[in-house]
Amino acid sequence: MKLWDKGLSIDKKIEHFTVGNDREIDIHIAKYDIIASKAHAKMLQKIGILSTNELVELLGGLKVLEKQIENGTFSIEEQFEDVHSKIEFELIKSLGEVGKKIHTARSRNDQVLVALHLYYKDNLNIVKYKTRTLFDTLLNLAETHKNKVLPGYTHLQVAMPSSFGLWFSAYAELMIDDVYLLHAALKTVDQNPLGSAAGYGSSFPIDRELTTKEMGFTTLKYNVVAAQMGRGKNERTIAAALGGLSNTLARFAMDVCLYMSQNFGFISFPDALTTGSSIMPHKKNPDVFELIRGKSNKIQALQTEMILITNNLPSGYHRDFQLLKENMVSAFEDMKDILDIFNYSIQQIIVNDIDVQDDKYKYLFTVDNINTLVEKGISFREAYQKIGGQVQEGSYKPDTSKKHTHVGSIHNLCLDKIRLKFPE
Amino acid sequence: MKLWDKGLSIDKKIEHFTVGNDREIDIHIAKYDIIASKAHAKMLQKIGILSTNELVELLGGLKVLEKQIENGTFSIEEQFEDVHSKIEFELIKSLGEVGKKIHTARSRNDQVLVALHLYYKDNLNIVKYKTRTLFDTLLNLAETHKNKVLPGYTHLQVAMPSSFGLWFSAYAELMIDDVYLLHAALKTVDQNPLGSAAGYGSSFPIDRELTTKEMGFTTLKYNVVAAQMGRGKNERTIAAALGGLSNTLARFAMDVCLYMSQNFGFISFPDALTTGSSIMPHKKNPDVFELIRGKSNKIQALQTEMILITNNLPSGYHRDFQLLKENMVSAFEDMKDILDIFNYSIQQIIVNDIDVQDDKYKYLFTVDNINTLVEKGISFREAYQKIGGQVQEGSYKPDTSKKHTHVGSIHNLCLDKIRLKFPE
Amino acid sequence: MKLWDKGLSIDKKIEHFTVGNDREIDIHIAKYDIIASKAHAKMLQKIGILSTNELVELLGGLKVLEKQIENGTFSIEEQFEDVHSKIEFELIKSLGEVGKKIHTARSRNDQVLVALHLYYKDNLNIVKYKTRTLFDTLLNLAETHKNKVLPGYTHLQVAMPSSFGLWFSAYAELMIDDVYLLHAALKTVDQNPLGSAAGYGSSFPIDRELTTKEMGFTTLKYNVVAAQMGRGKNERTIAAALGGLSNTLARFAMDVCLYMSQNFGFISFPDALTTGSSIMPHKKNPDVFELIRGKSNKIQALQTEMILITNNLPSGYHRDFQLLKENMVSAFEDMKDILDIFNYSIQQIIVNDIDVQDDKYKYLFTVDNINTLVEKGISFREAYQKIGGQVQEGSYKPDTSKKHTHVGSIHNLCLDKIRLKFPE
Amino acid sequence: MKLWDKGLSIDKKIEHFTVGNDREIDIHIAKYDIIASKAHAKMLQKIGILSTNELVELLGGLKVLEKQIENGTFSIEEQFEDVHSKIEFELIKSLGEVGKKIHTARSRNDQVLVALHLYYKDNLNIVKYKTRTLFDTLLNLAETHKNKVLPGYTHLQVAMPSSFGLWFSAYAELMIDDVYLLHAALKTVDQNPLGSAAGYGSSFPIDRELTTKEMGFTTLKYNVVAAQMGRGKNERTIAAALGGLSNTLARFAMDVCLYMSQNFGFISFPDALTTGSSIMPHKKNPDVFELIRGKSNKIQALQTEMILITNNLPSGYHRDFQLLKENMVSAFEDMKDILDIFNYSIQQIIVNDIDVQDDKYKYLFTVDNINTLVEKGISFREAYQKIGGQVQEGSYKPDTSKKHTHVGSIHNLCLDKIRLKFPE
Repeated sequence: MKLWDKGLSIDKKIEHFTVGNDREIDIHIAKYDIIASKAHAKMLQKIGILSTNELVELLGGLKVLEKQIENGTFSIEEQFEDVHSKIEFELIKSLGEVGKKIHTARSRNDQVLVALHLYYKDNLNIVKYKTRTLFDTLLNLAETHKNKVLPGYTHLQVAMPSSFGLWFSAYAELMIDDVYLLHAALKTVDQNPLGSAAGYGSSFPIDRELTTKEMGFTTLKYNVVAAQMGRGKNERTIAAALGGLSNTLARFAMDVCLYMSQNFGFISFPDALTTGSSIMPHKKNPDVFELIRGKSNKIQALQTEMILITNNLPSGYHRDFQLLKENMVSAFEDMKDILDIFNYSIQQIIVNDIDVQDDKYKYLFTVDNINTLVEKGISFREAYQKIGGQVQEGSYKPDTSKKHTHVGSIHNLCLDKIRLKFPE
Repeated sequence: MKLWDKGLSIDKKIEHFTVGNDREIDIHIAKYDIIASKAHAKMLQKIGILSTNELVELLGGLKVLEKQIENGTFSIEEQFEDVHSKIEFELIKSLGEVGKKIHTARSRNDQVLVALHLYYKDNLNIVKYKTRTLFDTLLNLAETHKNKVLPGYTHLQVAMPSSFGLWFSAYAELMIDDVYLLHAALKTVDQNPLGSAAGYGSSFPIDRELTTKEMGFTTLKYNVVAAQMGRGKNERTIAAALGGLSNTLARFAMDVCLYMSQNFGFISFPDALTTGSSIMPHKKNPDVFELIRGKSNKIQALQTEMILITNNLPSGYHRDFQLLKENMVSAFEDMKDILDIFNYSIQQIIVNDIDVQDDKYKYLFTVDNINTLVEKGISFREAYQKIGGQVQEGSYKPDTSKKHTHVGSIHNLCLDKIRLKFPE
Repeated sequence: MKLWDKGLSIDKKIEHFTVGNDREIDIHIAKYDIIASKAHAKMLQKIGILSTNELVELLGGLKVLEKQIENGTFSIEEQFEDVHSKIEFELIKSLGEVGKKIHTARSRNDQVLVALHLYYKDNLNIVKYKTRTLFDTLLNLAETHKNKVLPGYTHLQVAMPSSFGLWFSAYAELMIDDVYLLHAALKTVDQNPLGSAAGYGSSFPIDRELTTKEMGFTTLKYNVVAAQMGRGKNERTIAAALGGLSNTLARFAMDVCLYMSQNFGFISFPDALTTGSSIMPHKKNPDVFELIRGKSNKIQALQTEMILITNNLPSGYHRDFQLLKENMVSAFEDMKDILDIFNYSIQQIIVNDIDVQDDKYKYLFTVDNINTLVEKGISFREAYQKIGGQVQEGSYKPDTSKKHTHVGSIHNLCLDKIRLKFPE
Repeated sequence: MKLWDKGLSIDKKIEHFTVGNDREIDIHIAKYDIIASKAHAKMLQKIGILSTNELVELLGGLKVLEKQIENGTFSIEEQFEDVHSKIEFELIKSLGEVGKKIHTARSRNDQVLVALHLYYKDNLNIVKYKTRTLFDTLLNLAETHKNKVLPGYTHLQVAMPSSFGLWFSAYAELMIDDVYLLHAALKTVDQNPLGSAAGYGSSFPIDRELTTKEMGFTTLKYNVVAAQMGRGKNERTIAAALGGLSNTLARFAMDVCLYMSQNFGFISFPDALTTGSSIMPHKKNPDVFELIRGKSNKIQALQTEMILITNNLPSGYHRDFQLLKENMVSAFEDMKDILDIFNYSIQQIIVNDIDVQDDKYKYLFTVDNINTLVEKGISFREAYQKIGGQVQEGSYKPDTSKKHTHVGSIHNLCLDKIRLKFPE
């Protein structure tokens, strides 16, 4: 039987429908299945299901595959449904009967779940590391440009004086909040789920504390049903965390694009980081920052997908969960690229001198002028009206000399204190 | 000029459009504005802007309002735009000139922001407390019902034996992950933003460390631009945290509704917790749990709203941010109700004895049977085929006696270890 | 038994939890329940369940309530769960036994569903009408300002010449696409669901074609299960339609806010439509347009809520559906306000003359210059390089005189053709 | 300079970041670029920019590429950024100078936009066609199984009698509403955008009505700014439409999975459509329907992504828009597969005879019993209490013989009327 629009048989089509592109995604997961399989094998030997010799053989077989993965020579051919069946196949091919024993006291769900916990944990740590790198870059830029004035806007209207020091370090300090979410996600996945089997545990006397230690998890998801129900819930939390960071970066990129506009002209970038136009010879477009913004926004949308796939499903495994990993993996790949490229590009920034004497900026300093009057003993209300009157009749003269001294203000950025807040 | 469908003048309509229902929402915020105003006044005295007498007067005036709020006699009449203008008005009314001084060196944005930080922090702690209460309830129920068998499903198909002990404690352990997100949100809002003024700080020598201490914040958001940019970002993080908890509760409620169906018949509730039908005299509907599920799902949608309102806006305050608080406040009110009512209702649960000898459940034990064969020395594959053959030819006899001994399994729930995992 | 934080008894709390704020929302629904009850009564008489006299009495009783609703004197007191029980109560109070007969052959679900169809249909038509009004306003503004040049941007970089005529009429033409979605929503709700009872129809020989005609529905949702499953699905579609329109308006409002910034200075508004600052005497903030943007974005988030509440629920009514109407009603109220206020405010716009000779705009015309060379016979590539060279060496002189003649271009706006595209 | 975790140079990394996987996606777009290029070339000849000979040459060159695309031999090598540059390259390679002329009076944005309009239109029509096929299948199944009783549930509690006829045709009739949304999307994209160039039109006297006709568009997006602003807005509307259909299919799949559970046992499927378990020999899991549900839910999430990427961006092209097409194309591919596989699989359904005499179903008929009493002259309230009393004291005897006669009820399905409602 053939379907309407392609030459595929229905069997082929259903197979394709159920397998999806797991093979491509699973390349990212392969290394973590090896880690989990090694721990599982050691545990099986400990509880007497494998002999010491069998363990040695299995560890040897897994090592061979681990090397292939490291070298990039590992591949998942079309006859395999996923990385887990591929690895088991290879073990059986090279080790015979012993290879078949690795799957004792675990299930496919178990394998997928523990490999994802390991993958997520590793990648969340990488994201945190890259976040720290960007954080440091921004604080350095804040220090470098701390004396450069930047008009501050509210409602997109010229409001009060700001500075590039404030601007760069604001985004740095906001990233600390994003790390709180990354930590919540890390704690969520840093719990060993192995042993939940099909979601209800095993009648074998498996030693879950041993595998926890072997794989470097801080604790374990004790309850096997809870472990299994992490499917979807882990992804939801991680997506919230990646989305938080993306939110900060997207807003930063929006500022960059706006400040590069000729109507602001606050910053620019070397030609290598801008793009021309196929029809306008004068264009220098901020494509890199637009793509950072767009990809960050895409990551922000991820959580809705994770929730929609799993929402209102009763407890217990459902095949729908297979669909969760695809966009999680691609979000992690994007997130790491975004952080690298943001960190590289922002260092190339050219900060322009902004002429705050320009007519459109002169009211930046009205509040400072009012405060000066207040400090001389005039009430705030009276001072406000006095300066307001000057503005209206056109006699206002900005006093740009006033220093802001309080903690976290233009002239007292507290960069060291912000640096210390970054959570370990 | 009159608009099409109502008798309102355009001015009135625009006023209504801009004020919205801030007055109703702000009743929830009032108490926190008082806390912040007291701290701000003390700081103004410390830096010499207020005399000691003036401070005493202001604190007295604020105390009067605080009492009104506690007693429920405080109200925000229609002539006031929001709680902040109401409070300032009352201070000026009762104290005269001194009342006008409280607004020195702060701005409306400042006030809204710090009051929200305090409100969020307080309510997140209440949510955490109630989560702990429910967590304890569930662990107690797990202990009580630990010997009651529950069929375990995968793909909604009868799969392997589970128990009510596993079921209750699974949801308890999952709530620990939700607390990680609550903590991330708490850390995010437990930073004093006061002093950011309109988002760019103040030229007055304000002492932000003093107000931080006075209001009980653990640290401060140093950078004033970062403090202001918390608008939207705080809400996003809190919505992620409330959404995480809601996700757990919604799935639990789904299980409850399903297990109450005549086709499962695993549990029931006293009549007081079920609802009849206007046309079907036999109905006992689980409305309470359906509404827990529905309201939890509504909370899960909140984050998208918070992101959409703020996404891609350049830095600096925008009036759009005013719209964030309405659904945040109502989500907190719902969340607290959900937790109270869930905690009350779940204790009324009637757990039925399930006859696992019933034909539809007999295959629950096939894996246990296989494992018994494996332990006798038969390979897994052979054992699988042997039991599979029995299933096919109808000769399979379940062995329901097998104990699961490993950590986190049916007969070894580790409730104490789960209890210890709940984060302080 | 008292709960933790309020003085409410648990019964009271559960009642509050289940009723929610249906009473406030239902004021918007009341009028439509009357329409449906009248049609239902007429049908009951037609099929012999009511006598003619009973029908006359019921119609009289409903008319009294209808008047109260029109006059604003109708209210739903606390003893009533919702508008439907209130209306039935009033009928029984005034008519005795006859009042009890109105509920024959229908159920509460039926009533809610048909009243919502009528409410949605009516309000979608109002939204369409107001959309048309704004559409006309924008085309008029396009005509008025068709000769005013506006710099066109790509990537927020100065790109090519545009005009206020193009800008205004672009948003008008986009609104036509939004009307396609409104029409899809209208068609969805313009189907009579009455008769589905609890979702599976009735054993009474009700005449659904008669009620369809009485209530002015174009067709009926034949299948009673399909009718009931409209709950959630109708809301999803309407939210998509309101969200589409909101998307257009939010982007327009974003342009307005940006163009009002001193850095663009393209437009301004009279003081009555801008807002000052409590600390900055020079501010004229575009609060109205920011709130249009924010409220529009809130409406865009609505669909996610509708989906999350209903997603993955098996067929048949669930109490969760009660939660759908609250934010639908408030979205309709907001949508209508947004359209009225946008339509009023945009007419007050002050379009400034933009000096395209200003340095930052001079490259607007490079493509026109290139095209002129191409028309003289030079290849595009050569012309591009020639003008590009002039730009680089600073010798470029813009030629601002070139006319764009094609359909839909600056100098050929086709406003009449756009007007004709608006769907009836 | 090398980045942290990969061996890529920063240039390579930035190139990869900006190009993304456009090459893979663009294979789906290629054929539509050819159609648009042919129309554009004909128009250029018509307005005198190309000679007749040049047109013939270009059409010949495009035909060659068209054949390659049809045969599957067309590919986009790594040196090309996207399909558009590949096609232009090939034309220049084979035709020389003439090849260069095709890009006169259009821009890259133009090409992407028009190709996407054509791709979307074509695929929406395919989706509609496949929806019709499934609709017919469901109506046929409803006819076949119209006499098979199915318990009807509300609140997941046994409620009133339903039937497989009602169940199948309910989903068919709901799909009609989905087609309304598909039509809205079709109307939105069935407007020729070609000629908007970089978003502000062209100074060449292009004939947009000619290209409209050539490409088979019903009308054109007149305003060039509106045409360009379709980016994001088109995708938003299409995602709403695909999401609506997905919503129907996901709920249907949920019913299927639930009804296959041993606790319902209403339906089953041949082994070829179910999946076993690696550890449980008795399992027949409904993976196909779970994946239909999961993939449908994924499509429902798409709209949030489309909105988040574009929301709050000022008018004019932004590079972020490049990111829209990837998940749109994959959603279309999934949607078509879902429809094919649903249509194939549902025809294999085995509908079981359900014993409504079973204790758990006996109350299905209480309302029918009440209505019988009402028809005998007893008031509804009295009849309700009478039957209610029988239920409570255990004396209730269901009368399963009552016929439902009204339009759209169990025994009067109106399948022909539903069939006629399907919009052309």
